[in-house]
Amino acid sequence: MAEERLHKEEHTAQDEKFMRECLRLARHGAGAVSPNPMVGAVVVHQGKIIGRGWHKQYGGAHAEVHAIAAVKDATLLRESTLYVNLEPCSHFGKTPPCADLIIEKKIPRVVIGCKDPFKKVSGRGIKKLREAGVSVTVGVLEKEAERLNEAFIKFHKKGVPFVALKLAQTLDGKIATKTKESKWITSEMARAYSHQLRAEADAVLIGTGTALADNPLLTVRFVKGRNPMRVLLDRKLRVPLHANIFNKDAKTLVITSKVNRKHPKLKALARQDVETCFVTEKNDELNLNEVLEILHERKVLLVMIEGGAKLIASFLRTKLCDKLHLFIAPKILGADALSSIGQLNLRHLEDSIELHELSLKVLGDTLLVEGYF
Amino acid sequence: MAEERLHKEEHTAQDEKFMRECLRLARHGAGAVSPNPMVGAVVVHQGKIIGRGWHKQYGGAHAEVHAIAAVKDATLLRESTLYVNLEPCSHFGKTPPCADLIIEKKIPRVVIGCKDPFKKVSGRGIKKLREAGVSVTVGVLEKEAERLNEAFIKFHKKGVPFVALKLAQTLDGKIATKTKESKWITSEMARAYSHQLRAEADAVLIGTGTALADNPLLTVRFVKGRNPMRVLLDRKLRVPLHANIFNKDAKTLVITSKVNRKHPKLKALARQDVETCFVTEKNDELNLNEVLEILHERKVLLVMIEGGAKLIASFLRTKLCDKLHLFIAPKILGADALSSIGQLNLRHLEDSIELHELSLKVLGDTLLVEGYF
Repeated sequence: MAEERLHKEEHTAQDEKFMRECLRLARHGAGAVSPNPMVGAVVVHQGKIIGRGWHKQYGGAHAEVHAIAAVKDATLLRESTLYVNLEPCSHFGKTPPCADLIIEKKIPRVVIGCKDPFKKVSGRGIKKLREAGVSVTVGVLEKEAERLNEAFIKFHKKGVPFVALKLAQTLDGKIATKTKESKWITSEMARAYSHQLRAEADAVLIGTGTALADNPLLTVRFVKGRNPMRVLLDRKLRVPLHANIFNKDAKTLVITSKVNRKHPKLKALARQDVETCFVTEKNDELNLNEVLEILHERKVLLVMIEGGAKLIASFLRTKLCDKLHLFIAPKILGADALSSIGQLNLRHLEDSIELHELSLKVLGDTLLVEGYF
Repeated sequence: MAEERLHKEEHTAQDEKFMRECLRLARHGAGAVSPNPMVGAVVVHQGKIIGRGWHKQYGGAHAEVHAIAAVKDATLLRESTLYVNLEPCSHFGKTPPCADLIIEKKIPRVVIGCKDPFKKVSGRGIKKLREAGVSVTVGVLEKEAERLNEAFIKFHKKGVPFVALKLAQTLDGKIATKTKESKWITSEMARAYSHQLRAEADAVLIGTGTALADNPLLTVRFVKGRNPMRVLLDRKLRVPLHANIFNKDAKTLVITSKVNRKHPKLKALARQDVETCFVTEKNDELNLNEVLEILHERKVLLVMIEGGAKLIASFLRTKLCDKLHLFIAPKILGADALSSIGQLNLRHLEDSIELHELSLKVLGDTLLVEGYF
């Protein structure tokens, strides 16, 4: 630990500059590499980048491999530094260990953003490198590096998916008029951004009410990207078979109550290639901890909860949420319109749910407030 | 009109630079000059400011007088340009006409932000200058100049005060828990800013519910500044005589229903130096148009509506609002908490009240969204 701290203090502004480039490159893998992490790497020789790479596709070559392969004159590797935002792997997974490649290529120094929380790596990559005589600096732009792979890190450290809430509301916190009109509150730019968020999620999740009221497709349309798995929490299996969420555009998983194990609708769903899972009930609600366990088993790193108000409140009450993406349209609907977040039964202001590390974006005329719980 | 447009096109980047300085100086008068406008002026000789001035106090000397007096070598005035954000006056008010002073000092060019909407001036200052051979450019940073004195301009053009709404809420649009706890939702920085807004208003207005629930002082405390007149809309005269709003810290006006003309409480209020006015009722609400007429008579340029939710909704329904100052704390309270804006009875999204020209500020952990209706 002392050694690592020393190394952390030793890093230079130049190290940060190249780490920033790794982070930028890594983001190219958003929505494509999960359940692997997003990783970018650069090889730097005498202050100049001579090789860039990033992890492009789940199961494909790692960032380090691409960056090293991109170096035209391989003899320069012996005098270069490799930058990478996540600890190089030390085990045989889908590809051979990157630590071995670095040692083999005799790269004398490696600068790492953050440790890999994955049990089979977690410190072993660093140890392997150091034991082979490689100088290793860990923790350059560590916070940013951890942020980038926050879902991956939570998934491996805590064994649960990262839970993000996405909602669009008016300035006064409403999502629909009293007559339940709700399309479209936000700007086109905001909708495109919201589809980008969807494309970067492994699963999008809604409740029965939203499926019935809005009949959403839950696919990625306003931007290019992969459709996430669609997850419907339908305690009483009330959503009809012809609902958009059951079409062929993307994979769909229905999570329902264990009491429905023999429900006649299950076969019809299976015929439409819709999978079904069962969880217990508590106070007339599906057990959300079990829901997240199911998603964890299916390697969902990041699940985006897209509504409705009641389900979002249930997730908030169970303290299972990590992040909020709140789109705010410059409109007012008044107290008789529908609130964006359901009842939380909080009696005192000090019990209110607080957001931290807020950030703001302006998307056309819509504001996007993002923060962490 | 053609001539003015020509002049407007003729102005240079340098003109804008000096006009910006006028606007900056003018703002020093915020909260001190009303019901006069905020005005700043600079005298520029060969690209250099040789005199600065601003309107400091209601009834005091105008910005032009201060700027001209600040010029050490008065002979330079004959080769200088005077910049001022509002048309120089042409009439004898509390002080002699500034147009006459400019002519007397033989200043060859005057650059003006916007026209003075005040009937006794409105174009006559410009006309007087031009007739005396002064070259006049009108409309430099016109929009900014009009914005600065938006309340003054509305007051004179439409004969009504400028109505601003100020409210503080959670991210999900709530102002209090279901048990009505509401102090304090926002950050200290936000509260200081909100007192600054109060100090720049001529009147702050609340309804019976807020007076009873929060018992606010409605004075300026977290910043230095003048206490605005406190206005209480109390249809049934339910607020007790010992309420904070009736203390001696600031002037208070109670507006109540005409049916209370002979109410026994009136005398007690008068004994506490609280004035009373009467308006008609409509659907169990005080007529807000008449309320604004009363404020207009009392030379209130800017009234800040500080709550509660129901009164704000009433103002919104009557389409009398100009601006919103919405403080948003990074908290969530859920649908069972109290909404920040009362019922508006809007059935369709297209009927929603829209805000325009939004701007954002970050005050500690509180967001401030400001916009125009």
